[in-house]
Amino acid sequence: MSRRTKYLDLIKNCDSSPEDDGKLYSSFYKLLLPDDPRAHGFMLPSTVRKMPWTSDFAIDHIARRVQVLNTGSDLSNASISAFQKLIDSAIDQDIFSILHGQHSEMYRIIGANYPVRLERFASSLFGIISRGAHLTAYTCSASGDIRIWVPRRSAHMFTYPGMLDSTVAGGVKAEDSPFDCIVHEADEEASLPEELVRRDAKSCGVLTYMGMSDPGSGGEQGLVCPDLIYAFDIELGDGVVPKPRDDEVQEFYLWDVEQVKKAMFRAEFKPNCALVMIDFFIRHGIIREDNEEDFVEIATRLHRKLPIATAPSKG
Amino acid sequence: MSRRTKYLDLIKNCDSSPEDDGKLYSSFYKLLLPDDPRAHGFMLPSTVRKMPWTSDFAIDHIARRVQVLNTGSDLSNASISAFQKLIDSAIDQDIFSILHGQHSEMYRIIGANYPVRLERFASSLFGIISRGAHLTAYTCSASGDIRIWVPRRSAHMFTYPGMLDSTVAGGVKAEDSPFDCIVHEADEEASLPEELVRRDAKSCGVLTYMGMSDPGSGGEQGLVCPDLIYAFDIELGDGVVPKPRDDEVQEFYLWDVEQVKKAMFRAEFKPNCALVMIDFFIRHGIIREDNEEDFVEIATRLHRKLPIATAPSKG
Repeated sequence: MSRRTKYLDLIKNCDSSPEDDGKLYSSFYKLLLPDDPRAHGFMLPSTVRKMPWTSDFAIDHIARRVQVLNTGSDLSNASISAFQKLIDSAIDQDIFSILHGQHSEMYRIIGANYPVRLERFASSLFGIISRGAHLTAYTCSASGDIRIWVPRRSAHMFTYPGMLDSTVAGGVKAEDSPFDCIVHEADEEASLPEELVRRDAKSCGVLTYMGMSDPGSGGEQGLVCPDLIYAFDIELGDGVVPKPRDDEVQEFYLWDVEQVKKAMFRAEFKPNCALVMIDFFIRHGIIREDNEEDFVEIATRLHRKLPIATAPSKG
Repeated sequence: MSRRTKYLDLIKNCDSSPEDDGKLYSSFYKLLLPDDPRAHGFMLPSTVRKMPWTSDFAIDHIARRVQVLNTGSDLSNASISAFQKLIDSAIDQDIFSILHGQHSEMYRIIGANYPVRLERFASSLFGIISRGAHLTAYTCSASGDIRIWVPRRSAHMFTYPGMLDSTVAGGVKAEDSPFDCIVHEADEEASLPEELVRRDAKSCGVLTYMGMSDPGSGGEQGLVCPDLIYAFDIELGDGVVPKPRDDEVQEFYLWDVEQVKKAMFRAEFKPNCALVMIDFFIRHGIIREDNEEDFVEIATRLHRKLPIATAPSKG
């Protein structure tokens, strides 16, 4: 990106799926769960054609719907089993490059009215909401100057090698809460003690965006990738220094706001970590109405309404 | 509201204008400024019929557009003058009850590419974005317990008499920044010293919603009322006590989170102040993913994308 890169460009880089004008997603197939009329995902027609559907699913090509069938008395188990058999078969036959020919941890469908989970690598094939949790660790001097702990990803990482990251971040597994995720990852990635994180890390909000896979993402292209990021802050004292523990982080920098901004505009951050940093900047008075013309659009764009259920339906 | 009132109900109470499905606002007239194709407001057909239009405006009933004409070399002055002559005439003829037969302070059209302002009471007739600034003053104990300074509006106020409010709040006048507004109002409404507020008040974000006037609002009904709230926080020491100074506030309470919640769910807060409090609760870890099922919808709804320009256009 050029030196004229703006915060909005960094957001658009992640939030790359066009806005729904009531027509856009009509070319996609809606993913429907038993006994629930709401969309839980959007599938590309090419994915629907290639998927090795089993009798657990009904595909309606006219209405463009993929319906998980109620094949048992327990809607939760029926749905989980239906997805697992299908994904097993897709991995065995090596149909989708995005599955990398291997199994991955379980993610939850958060809008479902009963527990439903399926493998992480498969979630973007179904256009299901992925969830991450990001923790920003910072120090604050007596005069109010903020410094942020920024890790550099190891050069051998499969995704975004050598790029800058949120202090601590991870995908939220089906069995975890976002806070559990942060506590585990803070230990694994940054050697931050569980007791400290449980006491001082604070929930600060949730960010939403709709990505779209492109040649840069590897794997299938044009997939809709709705994403939630749960944002947490932790203020660390001068004596607390994050240290790499697993091999995912190369080193940590303690950078002032100007250093972080420069790295953001050089596009050195993993794209969705730039969103987390922009939200941190807004909440801490660094990006304001009086210094950022796009202030309102940035705030709304970081909280884009997703066209997919984000909570169980009422009643 | 019943005891089962939820945060989302409080938000919907303010954000009452239905979502744009690409058709909704097609019955409204778009307000267009010279040399700029973007909508800066949405006007009801009944408002357009009653408005005493001058030759400074072109009304297109087919395309449903109200175009401010370029009647001089200076687009800013031409637009300001066009609105003023029109509003003067509407007030003189007492056409709209929402104008209260009187002039009001100037508000800015924030999306305009050059300075344009018009009177506050008239802004909702044109469906222009209004802007407010709200400051939440709070204390935090050593153990992290938060208490919030909550004012009760005087019983003789014209709007929302006797209801609870944000610690300090005001409409942002054309010549002011949101921060200027907070500094002035903190002095006038709460006797908080300018020096303290300039040093410790921090910008924390911006909230957006689309109201719709109803019988409860008084005046014309069905008007689209887009609104921005710039949110600021200030942590006060134990020795600092807000005191009413003008006659708009009856008294201040220092309430813990449970007291504030109960008052919110009893609908004692002025509606848009409940939004400010909900945003404060999210940013301070009080409303979280693990205690609020609607967490994601609340966060996106507080940052609704407005169908109106929020910044000058680029290039």
